[in-house]
Amino acid sequence: MLEKFFSPKSIAVIGASRKPGKVGYAILQNLKNSFSGEIYPVNPNATEILGLKVYPCVRDIEEKVDLAIIAVKAEIVPEILESCGKKGIKNVIIISSGFKEVGNIEGEEKIKKIAKKYKIRILGPNCIGIYDSYSGVDTLFADPKRVKKPAKGHVGFISQSGALGLALLDRYAEMGLGISKFVSMGNKADVNEIDFLKLFGKDPSIRVISMYIESVSNGKEFMKVSREVAKTKPIVALKAGRTEKGKRAVASHTGAMAGSYEVYEAAFKQSGIIEANDLEELMDFTKALAAQPAMKGNKIAIVTNGGGFGIIACDQAEAEGLELAELSKDTLKKIKEILPAHAVAGNPADLTGDADSERYKQVLDAVFKDPAVQGVCVICLMQLAPLDERIVEVLEECKMYAKPFTLCIGGSAYSIEIAKRLQRNGIPVYPTPHRAVKALRVLYEYGNILKRVKRKSKT
Amino acid sequence: MLEKFFSPKSIAVIGASRKPGKVGYAILQNLKNSFSGEIYPVNPNATEILGLKVYPCVRDIEEKVDLAIIAVKAEIVPEILESCGKKGIKNVIIISSGFKEVGNIEGEEKIKKIAKKYKIRILGPNCIGIYDSYSGVDTLFADPKRVKKPAKGHVGFISQSGALGLALLDRYAEMGLGISKFVSMGNKADVNEIDFLKLFGKDPSIRVISMYIESVSNGKEFMKVSREVAKTKPIVALKAGRTEKGKRAVASHTGAMAGSYEVYEAAFKQSGIIEANDLEELMDFTKALAAQPAMKGNKIAIVTNGGGFGIIACDQAEAEGLELAELSKDTLKKIKEILPAHAVAGNPADLTGDADSERYKQVLDAVFKDPAVQGVCVICLMQLAPLDERIVEVLEECKMYAKPFTLCIGGSAYSIEIAKRLQRNGIPVYPTPHRAVKALRVLYEYGNILKRVKRKSKT
Repeated sequence: MLEKFFSPKSIAVIGASRKPGKVGYAILQNLKNSFSGEIYPVNPNATEILGLKVYPCVRDIEEKVDLAIIAVKAEIVPEILESCGKKGIKNVIIISSGFKEVGNIEGEEKIKKIAKKYKIRILGPNCIGIYDSYSGVDTLFADPKRVKKPAKGHVGFISQSGALGLALLDRYAEMGLGISKFVSMGNKADVNEIDFLKLFGKDPSIRVISMYIESVSNGKEFMKVSREVAKTKPIVALKAGRTEKGKRAVASHTGAMAGSYEVYEAAFKQSGIIEANDLEELMDFTKALAAQPAMKGNKIAIVTNGGGFGIIACDQAEAEGLELAELSKDTLKKIKEILPAHAVAGNPADLTGDADSERYKQVLDAVFKDPAVQGVCVICLMQLAPLDERIVEVLEECKMYAKPFTLCIGGSAYSIEIAKRLQRNGIPVYPTPHRAVKALRVLYEYGNILKRVKRKSKT
Repeated sequence: MLEKFFSPKSIAVIGASRKPGKVGYAILQNLKNSFSGEIYPVNPNATEILGLKVYPCVRDIEEKVDLAIIAVKAEIVPEILESCGKKGIKNVIIISSGFKEVGNIEGEEKIKKIAKKYKIRILGPNCIGIYDSYSGVDTLFADPKRVKKPAKGHVGFISQSGALGLALLDRYAEMGLGISKFVSMGNKADVNEIDFLKLFGKDPSIRVISMYIESVSNGKEFMKVSREVAKTKPIVALKAGRTEKGKRAVASHTGAMAGSYEVYEAAFKQSGIIEANDLEELMDFTKALAAQPAMKGNKIAIVTNGGGFGIIACDQAEAEGLELAELSKDTLKKIKEILPAHAVAGNPADLTGDADSERYKQVLDAVFKDPAVQGVCVICLMQLAPLDERIVEVLEECKMYAKPFTLCIGGSAYSIEIAKRLQRNGIPVYPTPHRAVKALRVLYEYGNILKRVKRKSKT
């Protein structure tokens, strides 16, 4: 019943606090704002918090409780977990830290034992829990002045690190990328990435699964499940702790064994997981895969109003194993008719600095319709005057061609605003041609993975 | 007299226009706002523009003219240039396009000939000219609603492409990086990157030279000059048109021959030029070198309040050929005393999620003072509550240790604001640990270049 972590009807917050700034206060406040089910604060020293009736113990709640969130000192977590078991709660998120990650193996074993006894599924300990933009479950105890939370979207985001997850959610929200479900796994005393891969794999609101992992709990099972999930949706993963020093840092972070990076690399490849080499790639690839179809071949077109940016995109395409599509004579003729005399019709199509959105619209139409083109990188230097915000509409209309495309837009306020509008409408925007082209490569990579996993499942 | 391009006492704007939206209007308006010397608009069909007296021909101006800016149709540029020659103007910026880049070789040869006859130095044609934050010379005809211009700073930026230059200036301004001088070279009919390397090399306001180039005019001379300049200030260059398709795109962009990339790569190495592989690296490296001293060795420390970010920084350090410094027993003891019981003292120093700026201050003091540490990567997840804006002051104080350091801060409004404040105060900030560590590597690379070029000049 892992679904209950994300879609409970009622939640008990154990360690609910009256003091703003405390974790147990922030969680309660968040839930009150976003969760429409029943909320039961638990604290033996309070009777009412934020207008909600407080219970001295979870067992004093008469109604059924689907999910408990524990935010108390590590020492009393076992005792609290016992009372959850007795109350019949089957899903528990343990926010509290002070277990395996600081060498308290005994404490962690104790809670595992209690969970087994009562058939409780535990998320954590040492985690920040869950954020679900649809159900409103939100245990992220962050100051809303500092952390923006993403709108509804199609990303399932699994993170072994809580702080890293929070920092990435804040960035996703800022760039306009929506999220469906986020889960921070912490020490993974019980549920782990394999459970969430399975769950997210079946979740119709999730189109791409994005992972930050330091260690994997069961390699073989992880690969098997990934291979299955990759048939229907892309998985992107960043594995941290690749190097000796990195591995040592992992051990003191989540108490995990990072393992050999080469093994991970090979396993990712075999299981159809797209590897990200850093946080930027993780976010960039996730963005592309959340919004765009897989690319069927490696032939792309580049459309730009800045020659230099176009050249850089060309160079990068070759570096990424993509090829510039040979446009048909018919397409070239059409482009020539659209462009002014001083522009050269070709691929990249350099619409030159005086291009407006109408010129983009016409050239994009010709380029997208060319059967040789399998994906498009569109570069818009919004710094160049005749191009204006009408480009947003033009680019949104490009979705109808059902071919993958990525955008390069960047700069100050004017450019940022246009980039955000496009991103909110499901078009992946990158600040440089380099990253926009790399994102196309990833869409091509997922196209190849699809072919491979489907072939394998037939034989 | 290349200085006159940047510090003229008087400027004639030939092709000055009364119509907002026209290049000849925008340039005049910009200059009126920023340039304190004499401005002479030239246009046979107007008598007054923006309150300035207009001259029918440049020869009608009685006073001495140091610099002429030509923004008229290509066809009449030779005739205009002749009149500039007769007037005795020695520095001319030709904004007009329609020359070599569209196959009009003849037109370009014609202007070269006239320039030779009158000993005129020409910048352009097909360029957007110059931006000098100190003298106020500004020929960038961009809509101020779209393009922010950088504040005074220490970067000399040479770009073969105008649009690309504009787009990058807009980004620099947005991130808070100041610029001293920017020049767009266009077709390089006369002055080229070698001239500006020499000029910027001697300019005390410039600490780093940043270049976007598609071709180099004279390889041997370029290398010789670069090697000389690199002794006193770092040069970063992005060479576009590396691949076959990229080279073809270069030909139709600035009419230049891109040449073999391998040759460039080797030449950069031999001349002490730091190569950027994409626009992001060009900006990232420029930022670091503009503000930070060279790194004397490859031993770094990582200080973070997010374990995951610290691990990624570790991994990246190894990938970049940097090593984690072995902190002294004394330093480790100090850190242990500062950190709470649940944190592990080491390198990376994970101050944990409850770190405030005081904890950063104390640990940074210990780390910077350790002789084993030659550079520091500081990661601040501003999403984590006890850390607040007081960190700005703490980080600014770190300048006193005279050791290079880079920062990783990123997220939504709160984080962005803090990042900008730091960047404006000369501390290079990056959104990911990956890029912050890479920037440290570049500071180390420049340290090595300094050793090499100084050794060579002794023998």
